[in-house]
Amino acid sequence: MIKLAIDIMGGDFAPLAIIEGVKLALRRYEDLEVVLYGDEEIIKQHLQPSPRITIENAPGKIDMGEKDPIGEIRRNRNTSLVRAFQAVKERKVDGAVTAGPTQGTIAAAHLIIRRIPGMKRVALCPILPNLGGKNRLLLDVGANLELRPEHLLQLAQYASVFAREVWGIQKPGVGLMNIGTEPGKGRELEKEAYELLSHDPNITFLGNIESKELFSTPCDILVTDGFTGNMIMKSSEGVAKAVGVFFKQEIKSHLCNKIGYLFMKKTFRRFKKKLSPDEVGGANLFGVDGVVVKAHGSSDAYTFSNAINQARMIVSGNVVEKMKAIIGEAAKEEGTVE
Amino acid sequence: MIKLAIDIMGGDFAPLAIIEGVKLALRRYEDLEVVLYGDEEIIKQHLQPSPRITIENAPGKIDMGEKDPIGEIRRNRNTSLVRAFQAVKERKVDGAVTAGPTQGTIAAAHLIIRRIPGMKRVALCPILPNLGGKNRLLLDVGANLELRPEHLLQLAQYASVFAREVWGIQKPGVGLMNIGTEPGKGRELEKEAYELLSHDPNITFLGNIESKELFSTPCDILVTDGFTGNMIMKSSEGVAKAVGVFFKQEIKSHLCNKIGYLFMKKTFRRFKKKLSPDEVGGANLFGVDGVVVKAHGSSDAYTFSNAINQARMIVSGNVVEKMKAIIGEAAKEEGTVE
Repeated sequence: MIKLAIDIMGGDFAPLAIIEGVKLALRRYEDLEVVLYGDEEIIKQHLQPSPRITIENAPGKIDMGEKDPIGEIRRNRNTSLVRAFQAVKERKVDGAVTAGPTQGTIAAAHLIIRRIPGMKRVALCPILPNLGGKNRLLLDVGANLELRPEHLLQLAQYASVFAREVWGIQKPGVGLMNIGTEPGKGRELEKEAYELLSHDPNITFLGNIESKELFSTPCDILVTDGFTGNMIMKSSEGVAKAVGVFFKQEIKSHLCNKIGYLFMKKTFRRFKKKLSPDEVGGANLFGVDGVVVKAHGSSDAYTFSNAINQARMIVSGNVVEKMKAIIGEAAKEEGTVE
Repeated sequence: MIKLAIDIMGGDFAPLAIIEGVKLALRRYEDLEVVLYGDEEIIKQHLQPSPRITIENAPGKIDMGEKDPIGEIRRNRNTSLVRAFQAVKERKVDGAVTAGPTQGTIAAAHLIIRRIPGMKRVALCPILPNLGGKNRLLLDVGANLELRPEHLLQLAQYASVFAREVWGIQKPGVGLMNIGTEPGKGRELEKEAYELLSHDPNITFLGNIESKELFSTPCDILVTDGFTGNMIMKSSEGVAKAVGVFFKQEIKSHLCNKIGYLFMKKTFRRFKKKLSPDEVGGANLFGVDGVVVKAHGSSDAYTFSNAINQARMIVSGNVVEKMKAIIGEAAKEEGTVE
């Protein structure tokens, strides 16, 4: 059985959407057990008791608008998020899933679960919409504003373990986001990272990737610093949103389009679904010493159940331990253990 | 009359598409005169003589794949691009338009036309597709990999002059691309640039803009460093391309969609046109001491005529001289003239 801690109070539609998501996940995945952190009374009202469900009363939550998440986490150890992460730290569960605020989640994971020894940075790693018929990881998208070449290498190694163990891709391709495809392009960061990535035996490096290839590159993994990654990810969101608005207006304004839409309804729905972050579950938090999946703040039950499944797959792929082995090898080679 | 130097040899479909673009522009804009730099024989074969056309024989061109554009420019002063820019430098024309390679164009503009005295950096500034019903400038998208806060300020000033004089927007809104909207977000670059932009009397600063707002922000101008700008712009291209591929495949594969497409054909065409870079003409090269518009490499006649019009509007708006006045004022205040 795989046992996951669930933050019931995080997310725009928490706690109800999260509780429904848990129910759905329990139906979908028979090997799943959950420990729910949140307002016990509310949870009990909406959930039948089951040997696969444990409830821990932790009604507090970290606000989205919280300006000082670190202080908030330190002051209030009884929030649902903090309690869920403590369970990960104490190995009472195999991993945790939350739809709480991104920066709060990253800060709490750092403070409570802590980084894997030897792992230099933590990264937020969403799965890109598979518009081109293929899933891709993009990292970092905002856990760090700036990264050094050796950080990008470690993140590429981590993401490669994920793609291998969770997606079953034997040799996942790694691309370095850059302003041109030729070697030697980019800032010092990209030039040095290119060298490191080229010579690492743990990854399959496919070179520099321009962001116009985001949905057509053969790469499974795209690495960049957190500022750039955030810009790339949100630009894609922006265009997708604008495309949606355009078609909506057009369909409303002409009879011909209304008729056409009736014929193409399924395609438009598929399009919306493909671009929706709901399908992929959530963003991975790579680098902390445990499995953490950050579901979208706007998660509904279906989305949240996908995020739960993502955590479940990472646990069953033993991703964290396999990354630890790579870090251990690297430390041995360098003759140092950080 | 407005007199523009045209690089006939630059561009994927040069020289013929460029010559046709010139013809179209001459028909559309009666105040336009052109000096054409390129292979005289070919030009004469395809163009009727006219008092509004001067031909200067300069058959050489800078290759797209040229690895050392600076060396190439220095070695071969008779390329069409170099000759066109020399005409700008010598004030024989009011500006220049080329569809040649981007880095070659930037290098040649630097070397031959040179920066406006006191202008610290040159920037490449495309006009974003007006998917949201509004034109917006994004800069820098690749003339510089890294920029300092004071560079972003100057670029915001320059773009504001453009938006005022060319688009007639009295108080163009300036946004700073960032990973969050609150002040204090971002790297040191963004934090310091936020301060500078907030207090400058020459611009209307609207704060930090996330890239998901690219096509919905009220801003007319979006500033960022060249690496980030390049990533943002090309991500948008990537999504737009992927959306196009998706619908194309869908329409092919189901009869229902084929019928729907027939009803929505005009809308799909409008969509394609809206996302096409052809409509906006080209990217501005801000900061050199003259008007330079870089048309897309894949320009056809229509696109190129739009790029010519863009240069024409910048000339008639007297943008370069107005920016010089702002730089002069700033230098006086600082008590220095760079």
